[in-house]
Amino acid sequence: MDQDLYLYESISIQLRRHIEGGSYLPGDRLPSVRHLSRLFNTSVNTIIQCLRQLEHENYIEIRARSGTFVAACPPINTPKASDFELLPVEVSLSDDILHYMEPHHHSDLVHLGIALPDPQLMPMERIMTTLRDITRKQPLEVWDYSHPHGHPRFTLQLARRSLHYPNRFSQDDLIVTNGCMEAIDLALRTVTRPGDTVAVESPTYYGTLLALEVLRRKVLEIPTSPSEGICLKTLEQAFKHGRVNACLVSTNAQNPLGFTMPEANKQKMVELATHYEIPIIENDVWGDTLYAEGAMPAKAYDHAGMVLYCHSFSKSLMPGMRLGWIAPGRFHHRLRELKLVSSITTASTPQLLMARLMESGFYAQHLLALRQQLATQAERIRQAVLEYFPQGTSVMQPSGGCVLWITLPPHMDASGLFDEALQSGIHIFPGQVFSPRQQYMHCLRLNVGSPVNADILQAVRRLGDIARTRESALLSGGLM
Amino acid sequence: MDQDLYLYESISIQLRRHIEGGSYLPGDRLPSVRHLSRLFNTSVNTIIQCLRQLEHENYIEIRARSGTFVAACPPINTPKASDFELLPVEVSLSDDILHYMEPHHHSDLVHLGIALPDPQLMPMERIMTTLRDITRKQPLEVWDYSHPHGHPRFTLQLARRSLHYPNRFSQDDLIVTNGCMEAIDLALRTVTRPGDTVAVESPTYYGTLLALEVLRRKVLEIPTSPSEGICLKTLEQAFKHGRVNACLVSTNAQNPLGFTMPEANKQKMVELATHYEIPIIENDVWGDTLYAEGAMPAKAYDHAGMVLYCHSFSKSLMPGMRLGWIAPGRFHHRLRELKLVSSITTASTPQLLMARLMESGFYAQHLLALRQQLATQAERIRQAVLEYFPQGTSVMQPSGGCVLWITLPPHMDASGLFDEALQSGIHIFPGQVFSPRQQYMHCLRLNVGSPVNADILQAVRRLGDIARTRESALLSGGLM
Repeated sequence: MDQDLYLYESISIQLRRHIEGGSYLPGDRLPSVRHLSRLFNTSVNTIIQCLRQLEHENYIEIRARSGTFVAACPPINTPKASDFELLPVEVSLSDDILHYMEPHHHSDLVHLGIALPDPQLMPMERIMTTLRDITRKQPLEVWDYSHPHGHPRFTLQLARRSLHYPNRFSQDDLIVTNGCMEAIDLALRTVTRPGDTVAVESPTYYGTLLALEVLRRKVLEIPTSPSEGICLKTLEQAFKHGRVNACLVSTNAQNPLGFTMPEANKQKMVELATHYEIPIIENDVWGDTLYAEGAMPAKAYDHAGMVLYCHSFSKSLMPGMRLGWIAPGRFHHRLRELKLVSSITTASTPQLLMARLMESGFYAQHLLALRQQLATQAERIRQAVLEYFPQGTSVMQPSGGCVLWITLPPHMDASGLFDEALQSGIHIFPGQVFSPRQQYMHCLRLNVGSPVNADILQAVRRLGDIARTRESALLSGGLM
Repeated sequence: MDQDLYLYESISIQLRRHIEGGSYLPGDRLPSVRHLSRLFNTSVNTIIQCLRQLEHENYIEIRARSGTFVAACPPINTPKASDFELLPVEVSLSDDILHYMEPHHHSDLVHLGIALPDPQLMPMERIMTTLRDITRKQPLEVWDYSHPHGHPRFTLQLARRSLHYPNRFSQDDLIVTNGCMEAIDLALRTVTRPGDTVAVESPTYYGTLLALEVLRRKVLEIPTSPSEGICLKTLEQAFKHGRVNACLVSTNAQNPLGFTMPEANKQKMVELATHYEIPIIENDVWGDTLYAEGAMPAKAYDHAGMVLYCHSFSKSLMPGMRLGWIAPGRFHHRLRELKLVSSITTASTPQLLMARLMESGFYAQHLLALRQQLATQAERIRQAVLEYFPQGTSVMQPSGGCVLWITLPPHMDASGLFDEALQSGIHIFPGQVFSPRQQYMHCLRLNVGSPVNADILQAVRRLGDIARTRESALLSGGLM
């Protein structure tokens, strides 16, 4: 590649970074050409060349006599729809995924790899005292099998979560599971068979890709954008032409992009699923960590029972208890059978614990504090990344959860960054495992679940240094 | 049918009952013909007719000039091998099974249905104080994901169980699961596919039949006998002719028959599996409840890694914690993948609990007391059944576990008994769901997990009364 970038490309990268980083939101008007030429200390012609480039890439729209605007659906960090072939592919990522997960079990690292809020953010004392109280007051319930569908005190609380949904569910509609992963696994096995194809967002959580690989389902990648969520036009094409047997999607605080799909689009997606009779598996494991109130899951709009809604408390309270649940809609009977023979019932203790924390209102209170803290941490680390990483890096602005999706300058290889970071005692997750076609080689995901301290800022700075060094080597041909 | 039984048939039934009930063990000499004719107050010719009948049925062997002996392998309570067609069948029992399980959740019944030791037999206080101690001393481990294969303190204890086996396993060979059911489900999904055939004992635990039905595997029933275990000759035929893709078997305290397979046969079975390369899934959920020491699982003889050994602490300590494990032999890699996507990892708290109870030697101590109590309860209820149930009823003498397998006189229908018992506030399990071909309509299984008290004895007496009444009605044509 070229030894250096043309000036207009360098300015394009900076403008892209502003858009992708959220400095300019979809629909915002950009400064005038004259203004930009002064800002970048360059000619008007260079700025025009640069804007044409961005327009060509669908980042902006140039409207005659009105000005230049950020596109309604800029291709932020994600490939353009035109890059997607609607061809199902087999997944073959498990070796890579297990390789990249492995460092999580080493205690001497800075953990920016696995997406998980730090225990410091969790009400550990309240959890432990409640557990002790349960062992004193409900020893028989701790000891015995729980009801196969779940403990009624717990499922009652779960059902109440839907009270404000356009479409409510009842206790009897739910099945308690060993975390969200069991819910997704049961859902996949309920509505698809080996060899079937499942539509997923691109990029999507590597854990669901791993499940699809292990269960031998094929994957059809559908483009997704932070402003719109999964591309409904493409999804409808896939539904219409019978290309997929199910769709697995996250609508709130999507992992890894962190966005939340607009409510109208959620509703539209459920309508499409209902019309074409394609089940939607909704992974809402991050839903309780949205920084702002008001969003509902797609399940809220599911009058026909086409959505298998999967949720857990692993990300918002405690992962080690393995407590999740599913509202499988019209697929309840088959899913209940699979659950019964896969583990009979879910352990009683975590259900009793969660029932109490919900009944008392404690969990809702805890979420208020957690969301605030995660939002603060995400923003501080995002700023650090923008400061320390090489020019041309962009960072998504999440609406919930605890991950940042980072796009490095083109041609950089995040798996090399993973190796070098690990040698420096830092665990990160490279982007390649978020797509079965490994489209995100130049992306990485950072966990921002921990309170920001000097070690973490130092680690981000170190990552930035590594990235810069690698980029220089790349530009000088050293890593080619 | 006949309004009455011939006299010789009536005496045959009584003799069968003595043999099946264990009054005469395999190889024992029966009283002389003359002695029997006095005992039954009948002619020598009637006794001879009766013995010929029993010989024809393989209950006894008549040896010239030596006398009459109980056969080495009497067809106790189980159909003769010649009754079995080696044809795989689809299972369709789920509605019945769920129907018969349902009363377990009603607290106002005498619970002789589900096989489960009573919490009174369990060290509830020790379990609860240990749990409290764990929440104080290891809150972070309670909170966090455990290692995907299991907590190392726990798997170390599990591996030590095999120290005296001819073939030991190590920590790294194990995967911790959500109870024995998850272990069996993962094992089945690892070594077979939908449409495949799995060999099982006849009768066998309805839970595994349910799993096979839900997972859409076919079943090939293999005869089993209390003295020999699963019939190795028949099993070899099935292996040899490629009729089965796996074999699912219980070798210790088999549910529902309660027998333990001789060690030599376990070893032989593993050799067959190794020779024909057919995986064996060993369900050893009752292994820790054997009344006597000394038996090992078939896994102990598994040098080639053909046995997927499934075990849990649900029956010997606590069901509600959902803690089991599997030693999957050479199928470790695929099983680990399926476990990872089916629930990521098993909850940490029960593992920490069990590790402590094993490290301190407490669990081993507890088993000594538990086994003694279960043996006592089983024998007391067995005697009560023999006393109260109609003539012609036989009861297996279990070697472990907490169930009794009862064979009613021919043509009686245990599902009718189930209905009538339930109206009397007693939950039992009818035999028909222990075979995909519903061969055990006249059998039932009683849970003997609870300390024997007046209520339980009263319930057994009531069951006996119901059975007698039904038998009389049957004989007089009323229930035909």
